[in-house]
Amino acid sequence: MQINGFSKLSKKDKINWLLKTYLYDVPEAAQILKQYWHNDVALQTLHDSFIENTISNFYLPYGIAPNFLIDGKTYALPMVTEESSVVAAASKSAKFWQDKGGFKTQVIDTIKTGHIHFIYEGETADLIIFFREHRAELLASVADLQMNMQKRGGGIKDINLIDRTDKLAHYYQIEFKFDTADAMGANFINTVLEEAAETLVKAAEVQLPAKLTILMRILSNYTPDCLVKVSVSCPVSDLAQDSLSGEAYAQKFIQAVAVAKVEPYRAVTHNKGIMNGIDAVVLATGNDFRAVEANAHAYAAKSGVYTSLSDAKIENGYFYFYLEIPLAVGTVGGITAIHPLVKFSLQLLQNPSATDLMRLMASAGLAQNFAALNSLITGGIQIGHMKMHLNNLLTFLKATEAERQKAQSYFSDKKVSFKDLKKLLQRD
Amino acid sequence: MQINGFSKLSKKDKINWLLKTYLYDVPEAAQILKQYWHNDVALQTLHDSFIENTISNFYLPYGIAPNFLIDGKTYALPMVTEESSVVAAASKSAKFWQDKGGFKTQVIDTIKTGHIHFIYEGETADLIIFFREHRAELLASVADLQMNMQKRGGGIKDINLIDRTDKLAHYYQIEFKFDTADAMGANFINTVLEEAAETLVKAAEVQLPAKLTILMRILSNYTPDCLVKVSVSCPVSDLAQDSLSGEAYAQKFIQAVAVAKVEPYRAVTHNKGIMNGIDAVVLATGNDFRAVEANAHAYAAKSGVYTSLSDAKIENGYFYFYLEIPLAVGTVGGITAIHPLVKFSLQLLQNPSATDLMRLMASAGLAQNFAALNSLITGGIQIGHMKMHLNNLLTFLKATEAERQKAQSYFSDKKVSFKDLKKLLQRD
Repeated sequence: MQINGFSKLSKKDKINWLLKTYLYDVPEAAQILKQYWHNDVALQTLHDSFIENTISNFYLPYGIAPNFLIDGKTYALPMVTEESSVVAAASKSAKFWQDKGGFKTQVIDTIKTGHIHFIYEGETADLIIFFREHRAELLASVADLQMNMQKRGGGIKDINLIDRTDKLAHYYQIEFKFDTADAMGANFINTVLEEAAETLVKAAEVQLPAKLTILMRILSNYTPDCLVKVSVSCPVSDLAQDSLSGEAYAQKFIQAVAVAKVEPYRAVTHNKGIMNGIDAVVLATGNDFRAVEANAHAYAAKSGVYTSLSDAKIENGYFYFYLEIPLAVGTVGGITAIHPLVKFSLQLLQNPSATDLMRLMASAGLAQNFAALNSLITGGIQIGHMKMHLNNLLTFLKATEAERQKAQSYFSDKKVSFKDLKKLLQRD
Repeated sequence: MQINGFSKLSKKDKINWLLKTYLYDVPEAAQILKQYWHNDVALQTLHDSFIENTISNFYLPYGIAPNFLIDGKTYALPMVTEESSVVAAASKSAKFWQDKGGFKTQVIDTIKTGHIHFIYEGETADLIIFFREHRAELLASVADLQMNMQKRGGGIKDINLIDRTDKLAHYYQIEFKFDTADAMGANFINTVLEEAAETLVKAAEVQLPAKLTILMRILSNYTPDCLVKVSVSCPVSDLAQDSLSGEAYAQKFIQAVAVAKVEPYRAVTHNKGIMNGIDAVVLATGNDFRAVEANAHAYAAKSGVYTSLSDAKIENGYFYFYLEIPLAVGTVGGITAIHPLVKFSLQLLQNPSATDLMRLMASAGLAQNFAALNSLITGGIQIGHMKMHLNNLLTFLKATEAERQKAQSYFSDKKVSFKDLKKLLQRD
C-alpha cells in the first residue's frame, strides 16, 4: 500500500486510489467526499489550496453567541466548534453579565519572542564581547525585513545574548523580542531570525576563536508577555439562585475555583473549559489553535504546578471572577484575508485589531468557564449536555418534528439514554 | 445591541439581525454565509444540529497523508487543519520512515479518571470509615449505568477516597478510575459520577456526624494513565544528508531535542508541532481537540518544568526518536456516528478501536515533530513554509496557471514577499 507521487495525483485520482486501497472500491465512499465539494469551482479551488492533498471540505458548524458586552461595546461572537452546548453556554453567560457591566479587559503587553539557539564551544566571555560588538550589525542585517512591520507600529524591540550553559553544555540563545502589530507574526519572526542567523554565522567565522553552530532559529509559541486580563464582577447578592443565597453561591463558586487551583486533575478540565470558548473564536477568525493551546497550558504550568488560569474572590461585598491568559493571535496574515468566512467573522467583530481580538477571545474563555462552574456547582453538567445530546440522537434517528417533541417532553425530567430513546420512538 | 430570544429565531432571522446590527445590512455579507450552506436540506439540518445558533458551515480542508507504516500496517491518515505544510510534512516523514520499519507503538494503559470533589467539615477518620462501609453501596447505585459499558469491556475499575486537606481546608475527593472501551467516555463518566454523588449525599446525611457538601462531580481531562508510546529508529548512517554525515545529523537532531527538554520557550513550540499532527487526525475523526491539548500540555509539565514530549538518542549505532503522550479519544459516541466525514475517516482507517486511534494519532505527532526538527536543523523552516505561503498568495491574487509557473520559478531561489510577488505579476 505504498504510493509514490500521491501529492501529484489529481483530486479524483487521489480519491480513486484511496477507494481501491482502503475502501473496497465502493462508490458510496467517494460520494461522501464529493457531496461536500462546493459547486463553485473557483471557491473550491481556493479552499483546496490552503493545505496539501485536499480531497474534501470538513464542515464545522459556525455559530453565534450574541450579547457579549466587552469594554462597553456589545459583540456577537462567531464560534466554530464541534462540541454541543459551548455556544449555548457562552450565550447564557454573556446575557447574565450584560446587565452587570459586562466583561472588562486589559491588554498587559504584546511582546513575542524568537530565538537563535546555538552551541558555542569556546569561552562565554569571548561570546559576550562578540555579541556586544556585533549587536548593531545583526540588527542592520534585518532592517529591510522589518521595514514594513515598523510602518505598522511593530518590529524588533530588543535582542539579548542568553547563557543557558547551566542547562545544556555550550548552549546559548540570542533572544529577539518583537511587536508584530496586528499579525500573529510567525512568518515575520522566522524570516528575521533566519536572516540574522546567517549574519551571526558569518561574523562568528571571522571573529570568534572557537566554533559556533546554529541549532535552530525559530519563534516561540510561548508568549507570557503577550498577555490579556479579563474580569466580571457584581454585588454578591446578584448571584442568588433558587436554592442558594448570593453569599452561598459565591462561596461555593470560589471553592470550586480553589479546587482547580490546587488539584491538577481538576485544573486541566477547568482550563479545557476556558479553551472551549477561546478556540471557537480562534477557529472562526482563522487563527492557529495549536499555538494558542500550547501557550495557554504552558502558562498554566509556569509556577511548577499546573493550575487554574482563572480565579475568583469576594471583596467589599462584590464578587470578582477573572482570567489572565497569553494570547498571540492576529487579524492580518495567514488565512485571515483569504478564507471568506474568516473575513466575515472579522467584519462581524467590527474589524478588530490583534489586541481587540485578545480581549474578545479572553472574554469568550471567561464566559465559558463561568457557565461550566455555574452548572457544576448547581445542577451538574449532564442536564444541559444531555439535552444537547438528545438533539444529536434525534437527528441520528431522523426523528420527525412530532417525535422530537415527544422525546423532549419525555426526557424533560429523566436521564437521556439512547436505549430509552429508541424504545420511546419504537426504533428496533 | 442587546437581543432576547436569539436562539429561537430562524436561521434567516438570525442572519438578518446580525446584518442589520453589525454589517450595515449589506446583502454581500449574507451571501458569504449562504454560499456555504449545503444544497441538501436534510444534510444541512444535520450539520446545524451539532451546536447551537448555527448560521453556516466553516470549511476546514480535509487532506490525506499516505504511507504511514504503523505497527506493520500502512495507513493513509485523514488530516483536517487550516495550516499549510502540515500534511506535506507528515507525508514526507511517513515516506522517510516507511522503508525503515515505520512507527512502532505501545499503548501503556487506558485508565481515565473522574472525581466527586467535596468538602467535609468533620474528622477525616470518620470519613475513612464511612467510605469503607459505603463503597459497595456507591458502586451498586451505578451498576445499571455501567452495564452497557461493561458489556463492551469497560466500566469502573476502582474507587478511592483521597484526602486533599493538605491543599485546601476540608477538601476530599472520591476518585473513580474507568475504562471506557472505544468511547472517549465523558458522558458516561459524568453520568456515573452524578448518580454516585446523589448516593453519597443521601448516605452522608444519615451516617456522618458533620456536613458533607458536594462541590463538583466531573471527569478529568488529565489522563496520565491513558498513555501511548511511539518510536521510529534506524541505523545512524541512514540519516546522512547532502551536507551532513549520519552521525553529525543524529547529533544535531539530539541537541535540538535537548534544547526542547531544558528550555520551556522552545518546548512549547516543539510540542505545538507535535500537536499539529495529532490535532489534524483528532479533528478528522470527530474527537475533541481541546481535551487532547489540555491533557498533552499538562503531561508535558508534570515534572514541574514544562518540557518536550519527545526524546531522541543513539544506542549501538541506531538512532531512536520517540514520543510518550496521554490520549483520551474515542471511535464511538459524540459526533463519530453522525458526521458523515468522520464516518468516512474511520472507514479509511479500517474502523480502528480507541487504542488503535491512540497509536495512529501518536504516530502523526511524531512524524510532524520529525519533519519540523529536520527542517530546523537543516535549511530552516521558512523555505518550505514560504513555498506553501506563495501558493496562498497566488490564490489570493487569482493568478493564472502561467503566472503561477512564473512566480514559482522566480521565487525558487529567493525569499517570498507579497510585495515582490505583486510587482512580478504587475498587480497594482
